[in-house]
Amino acid sequence: MKQSVAPVAPTAPPSEAARLAETARAASRELSRAHSAAKDDALCAIADRLVATRGRIERANRDDLAAARRAGVRGAFLDRLALDPKRIAAMAEAVRAIAALQDPVGEVVLSWRRPNGLTVKQIRLPLGVLLVVYEARPNVTADAAALCIKSGNAVLLRGGGEALHSNRAIARAVGEGLRRAGLPADAVQLVEDPKRERLAALLALEGKIDLCIPRGGAGLMSFVREHARIPVIPHGAGVCHVYADASLDRDAAVRVIVNAKAQRPGVCNAAECLLVHRSAARELLPLAARALCDADVELRCCPTSLAIVRRAGFPARPAEESDYGREFLDRILAVRVVRDLDEALAHIERYGTGHTEAILTRDLAAARRFEREVAASAVMINASTRFNDGGELGLGAEIGISTGRLHAYGPMGLRELCSKKFVVEGDGQVRA
Amino acid sequence: MKQSVAPVAPTAPPSEAARLAETARAASRELSRAHSAAKDDALCAIADRLVATRGRIERANRDDLAAARRAGVRGAFLDRLALDPKRIAAMAEAVRAIAALQDPVGEVVLSWRRPNGLTVKQIRLPLGVLLVVYEARPNVTADAAALCIKSGNAVLLRGGGEALHSNRAIARAVGEGLRRAGLPADAVQLVEDPKRERLAALLALEGKIDLCIPRGGAGLMSFVREHARIPVIPHGAGVCHVYADASLDRDAAVRVIVNAKAQRPGVCNAAECLLVHRSAARELLPLAARALCDADVELRCCPTSLAIVRRAGFPARPAEESDYGREFLDRILAVRVVRDLDEALAHIERYGTGHTEAILTRDLAAARRFEREVAASAVMINASTRFNDGGELGLGAEIGISTGRLHAYGPMGLRELCSKKFVVEGDGQVRA
Repeated sequence: MKQSVAPVAPTAPPSEAARLAETARAASRELSRAHSAAKDDALCAIADRLVATRGRIERANRDDLAAARRAGVRGAFLDRLALDPKRIAAMAEAVRAIAALQDPVGEVVLSWRRPNGLTVKQIRLPLGVLLVVYEARPNVTADAAALCIKSGNAVLLRGGGEALHSNRAIARAVGEGLRRAGLPADAVQLVEDPKRERLAALLALEGKIDLCIPRGGAGLMSFVREHARIPVIPHGAGVCHVYADASLDRDAAVRVIVNAKAQRPGVCNAAECLLVHRSAARELLPLAARALCDADVELRCCPTSLAIVRRAGFPARPAEESDYGREFLDRILAVRVVRDLDEALAHIERYGTGHTEAILTRDLAAARRFEREVAASAVMINASTRFNDGGELGLGAEIGISTGRLHAYGPMGLRELCSKKFVVEGDGQVRA
Repeated sequence: MKQSVAPVAPTAPPSEAARLAETARAASRELSRAHSAAKDDALCAIADRLVATRGRIERANRDDLAAARRAGVRGAFLDRLALDPKRIAAMAEAVRAIAALQDPVGEVVLSWRRPNGLTVKQIRLPLGVLLVVYEARPNVTADAAALCIKSGNAVLLRGGGEALHSNRAIARAVGEGLRRAGLPADAVQLVEDPKRERLAALLALEGKIDLCIPRGGAGLMSFVREHARIPVIPHGAGVCHVYADASLDRDAAVRVIVNAKAQRPGVCNAAECLLVHRSAARELLPLAARALCDADVELRCCPTSLAIVRRAGFPARPAEESDYGREFLDRILAVRVVRDLDEALAHIERYGTGHTEAILTRDLAAARRFEREVAASAVMINASTRFNDGGELGLGAEIGISTGRLHAYGPMGLRELCSKKFVVEGDGQVRA
């Protein structure tokens, strides 16, 4: 059984973490009652401040980049950390786009009348105080702050130590924007925490922080899981499959497979494994292999698919058992030929992570079964796994993609940062 | 900071708890795919078996009652434990009523079309494996089993040791009903656990049990909070207030106050505290005191209300500070006169538990502010707190009333026992 003892003793005094949470709570009360106009004013002021202080932000970012280089950090990580004028402008634009979304707070989700004359409404309200934990990319600081402000939640932002200076400069612009709009600057607080000590202390604040949203690698996720005494909505790994059924549109299938794998291989909704029905394998695999090779994708194949791909003259290597269920986040694709839909469903159930699963088929019955039986935050039928994204689904900006079924499953946007309360209106009704 | 070390070491071998969860997981896969008709057949068969085996259930219940009496248990508790033919028939009827509700699984909650032709749907699916923890009342065994079956979830039922024989007999009827309908009997498993050892082991099964729903007293709730490494939806105490505003319908107000307090004082949506605007106090309090005294309610008053009530010739005693924020679950009501709506809101924010809060008013602005600013699972305007109930709100049977804002806030019915996944249908769309 799992030890519930924290292996790293939080050395930050608990009173400090509690104090952070208390100032956030006070700000959350005020923010939860703020009118939409005030929140949108704050968001526009934040966007303005991000643009106006972009020199300060860039300088801070150069410090972070220099420190990362000194620490021997590699390419992709550096790219995620780096900010330039274009990225800062995009960050400000993203904040303005969130201002333009509908305010979820106060939205009447459903309403009905009871036989005794009572009117029942379900109305959205903020969750309260959130803790968002993330790594590297400093734009998350602005994004997460904006989503929380718009949804009336106070937030503690615990970014990665490697982006500390950048995050500080961005958080300063956020605070200035909040103050200009007359909203409490404590609604968004940056937690500076190079060694996860404060994070451990915050995760222990049961009842004082309403939700932790962690976004990051396996190490961060397991740290959060280990230490959390507060609710956590996991943003776990995406081991996404594309299953090519017996009967399909070959051209569309190749297009979707390549898009799912190679359009942006380093993200959680990219495909990691291609399953092919045995009666489609001989025709589809050579075409897919050609397109994937053109996209620099390495294939790791089961014996059947390996033989077909090699016979067609494309490179491939044998898959090891550990290649199935693995999140490569890279230009690598596991490939396996399956006997039928049942075997595909069993493979997905065994190796999938409940993130995104796709079927390519012309067969209505197969599509219906796949839709019904696959438990994933998004099930794609003849569409790329890459569409599991708040913007692409039409939900607006998201704080992440939940891989847990509780509260939110899939993209977490403004609505998922809220709860719903019942409001019952009567004229003196009592219960019999 | 809170210790996350389990103070009671689970002595049941972890493999036993894990084995329970695994058999539940296997059953949950099957149940999640079952057609509504099969689930409803099972529920009707369970109701039939409850009626057919009522002799067995009554005999088992007599054993529990005798043991409870030997242990010196008192009246109200014995009453909640006791089953008679009428209560067993009501239990069977409740199961049939759940069969008659709409199946939440597969329900398309929302659907829209994207500019690129993709169809996006949000479809309900079960949560997975649940752990329901409760005390005393054996009818919860049948209720919780029926709600979980209907919503496609497997459930581990951890009832109180005092109802062990009754729960066993009821669970046997549930298993027989499931088997008759061709559904896996392991979908509902009773956890026999007189000393909370197995509960502690189950609560540690992170990733193997999807949700714990605890229903019970403060001791049980804090045990669950202490030991849980799995998600918990708290069903906490209800310290519910009725605030009588300056301008109100006096007769309706008295009716609602008495109903909220005295119609069933031992439940979580009963009122525990009456707040009265100072300009309504002199007229309202004597009328309310008379009606409350008639209903055998003891008043614990602030100095101002004490003077008014006593001057009107009704008994009352001075409130102590600890009477505010206290869940009496009895015929006792704390009373306090407040300066204005602000003071009432501040009192509710300080002492309320986010369960149910009511305002009695004729003033639209006051009603609007109360609706907007009170964060509770149900906000009542000119209606009794007792309406915060799944059946009364028109939601159907409920597994409990959540006092946490995550996932479900207020009555948890069939829908709240589900999650939602996205299903995206296209014809080969890829992301640009």
